[in-house]
Amino acid sequence: MSRSVLLLPGDGIGPEIVAEAEKVLHKINDKFSLDLTFDSALVGGAAIDETDVPLPDETLEKARKADAILLGAVGGPQWDSLPMAVRPEKGLLGLRSNLELFANLRPAILYPQLASASSLKPEVVSGLDILIVRELTGGIYFGQPRGVRQLESGERQGYNTYAYTESEIRRIGRVAFEAAQQRGKKLCSVDKANVLEVTVLWREVMEDLKREYPDVELSHMYVDNAAMQLVRAPKQFDVIVTGNMFGDILSDEAAMLTGSIGMLPSASLNSEKQGMYEPCHGSAPDIAGQGIANPLATILSVAMMLRYSLNEDAAADAIEAAVSKVLDQGLRTGDIMSEGARKVSTREMGEAVLNAL
Amino acid sequence: MSRSVLLLPGDGIGPEIVAEAEKVLHKINDKFSLDLTFDSALVGGAAIDETDVPLPDETLEKARKADAILLGAVGGPQWDSLPMAVRPEKGLLGLRSNLELFANLRPAILYPQLASASSLKPEVVSGLDILIVRELTGGIYFGQPRGVRQLESGERQGYNTYAYTESEIRRIGRVAFEAAQQRGKKLCSVDKANVLEVTVLWREVMEDLKREYPDVELSHMYVDNAAMQLVRAPKQFDVIVTGNMFGDILSDEAAMLTGSIGMLPSASLNSEKQGMYEPCHGSAPDIAGQGIANPLATILSVAMMLRYSLNEDAAADAIEAAVSKVLDQGLRTGDIMSEGARKVSTREMGEAVLNAL
Ligand SMILES: CC(C)[C@H](C(=O)O)[C@@H](O)C(=O)O
Ligand SMILES: CC(C)[C@H](C(=O)O)[C@@H](O)C(=O)O
Repeated sequence: MSRSVLLLPGDGIGPEIVAEAEKVLHKINDKFSLDLTFDSALVGGAAIDETDVPLPDETLEKARKADAILLGAVGGPQWDSLPMAVRPEKGLLGLRSNLELFANLRPAILYPQLASASSLKPEVVSGLDILIVRELTGGIYFGQPRGVRQLESGERQGYNTYAYTESEIRRIGRVAFEAAQQRGKKLCSVDKANVLEVTVLWREVMEDLKREYPDVELSHMYVDNAAMQLVRAPKQFDVIVTGNMFGDILSDEAAMLTGSIGMLPSASLNSEKQGMYEPCHGSAPDIAGQGIANPLATILSVAMMLRYSLNEDAAADAIEAAVSKVLDQGLRTGDIMSEGARKVSTREMGEAVLNAL
Repeated sequence: MSRSVLLLPGDGIGPEIVAEAEKVLHKINDKFSLDLTFDSALVGGAAIDETDVPLPDETLEKARKADAILLGAVGGPQWDSLPMAVRPEKGLLGLRSNLELFANLRPAILYPQLASASSLKPEVVSGLDILIVRELTGGIYFGQPRGVRQLESGERQGYNTYAYTESEIRRIGRVAFEAAQQRGKKLCSVDKANVLEVTVLWREVMEDLKREYPDVELSHMYVDNAAMQLVRAPKQFDVIVTGNMFGDILSDEAAMLTGSIGMLPSASLNSEKQGMYEPCHGSAPDIAGQGIANPLATILSVAMMLRYSLNEDAAADAIEAAVSKVLDQGLRTGDIMSEGARKVSTREMGEAVLNAL
């Protein structure tokens, strides 16, 4: 049975890093006889430049049909002054919501080879391995009503709506409980239930779900405290589950604890396990086109794709082992460079992974 | 001209730490002939236990008349199962909104004597001195409509509203620009203008204000990136200005960078410079009543009170110098204890500051 992968290089460093990940995909396809087929499409600023919209119908059609999607990154200063409805980010948000990719999995892992890259003390972060489960198609990102209106007083007011239904909370809760079952069996749900009614409901539904997962230890934490605890003692966490906005903030904070955001992949899944995979980092317009970006987060996103959407654990393991090997060899792109290591380009890093496969 | 200070000890460790700060206030009052008068009142859980409401009318009346308020902390597990409208936090939120204390100033300063307490590497945080200016009476904390409703489908939905008017943004913007003028002249406004319309307006108003403060360098940062940059390189910031919810999260994260949240004061001001002063930390129910809490954040809150609401800079300087002196003497409460220092109780720490005055 042949399965299809859609490549969406996007903007900035996106095309460079996706090119390396694509080579890895081809090699893995041959080596493990996966029978994958490939296609590509435009999204984000690249799509705006060609078609005036960040998510062309053709791209959305291809995305719907694909078994899995690999995205580079979207956005850049040249599109920043466009009205919000036609900015590159809307391409990404449109894919998430149209495909109902409600479950965003963001691991924050410290690679032992890169321990010194963290701004935290080694004893605080060594061995760090957290999974953040972020709700991705609801909350304040998509809540209605929203906009900027003129009040009777004549002045303007901006407004957004933060809303969740019980079923939206329940389905992301299940993903998180199940992830915890397969890991350290500890789940921390992050909310602001002392101030926000929507998160009072969130907490209630999580408590309800707990009965179905008696082997998982559930705790609750306010978001301000969670932001603190991640800095103070991140290893206290196993799996964190939270809403779209808090997840955006906390997953980036957690990623930065490792000091090597150029290494961190992510998965966005729907209930059919169809998924979009992308590096945690952004489009990095400042270094785009120079061939120096780190392709490893994108390559590791391919590993997540193989594991979650394509059910090819052995192939995923092979990629992760290959990445670990090139790190052992002392190869580093600029973002993770340290004394004594060998600095390589985007392409050299990609080649090294291919060779290690 | 006599001026009045209202003491609100609150819950948990609140009474213990406010007791020490009160002694400092009395001594400073004598020493600098400030002619301050004192009163106290109930708030939070302590008020619920006595009067069934977290903010009794009598407390609010006294607060309105006071020139400045010193608050300990509110909240604790015994009140956590109460409905949101009558929980301790509502006492705090009610004071903020009734007195229109819209400007929350939260310094994150690393005391050189406590450098080793941080979980970050010394070179990343040494000399850290950031001021977070958080909007405190608007945004999603107070936005209407809010609640939990039954949808036609039968399931429940929780919802909150994140809203700001131009004038609300402008007045907090001015406070931040003015603070930056008196410091390093760099202001970073944090928003999520690539997703939330309310923060598109926020950014627009900040840009507008910039023209009135040509000596301040204004930058903008998305909140997810800000959460990362605080971990990666916090010293890049001078003053940060942001809304209520993002400010709650980022100010706690920034405070924890110092590793000694027991040292950090805060001020909440209205447009008449009437202010409520409180430590950044919470009510710490786990150590309440043991006499081991750190009173220094509350004592330093008194210094902020003298500076911002009472215009007594010399008295404020004296308190800050006294705190620095007891740190130099090697005195430490449990939360900031390190090898070679002398561990002291809440009361001993308070006495040491009195002696150093
Ligand atoms: C680009 C932006 C819209 C997006 C988000 O806020 O979700 C990004 O920050 C992310 O986390 O994937
Ligand atoms: C206690 C709580 C309501 C409060 C807030 O969220 O504002 C606290 O976290 C703070 O930052 O002062």
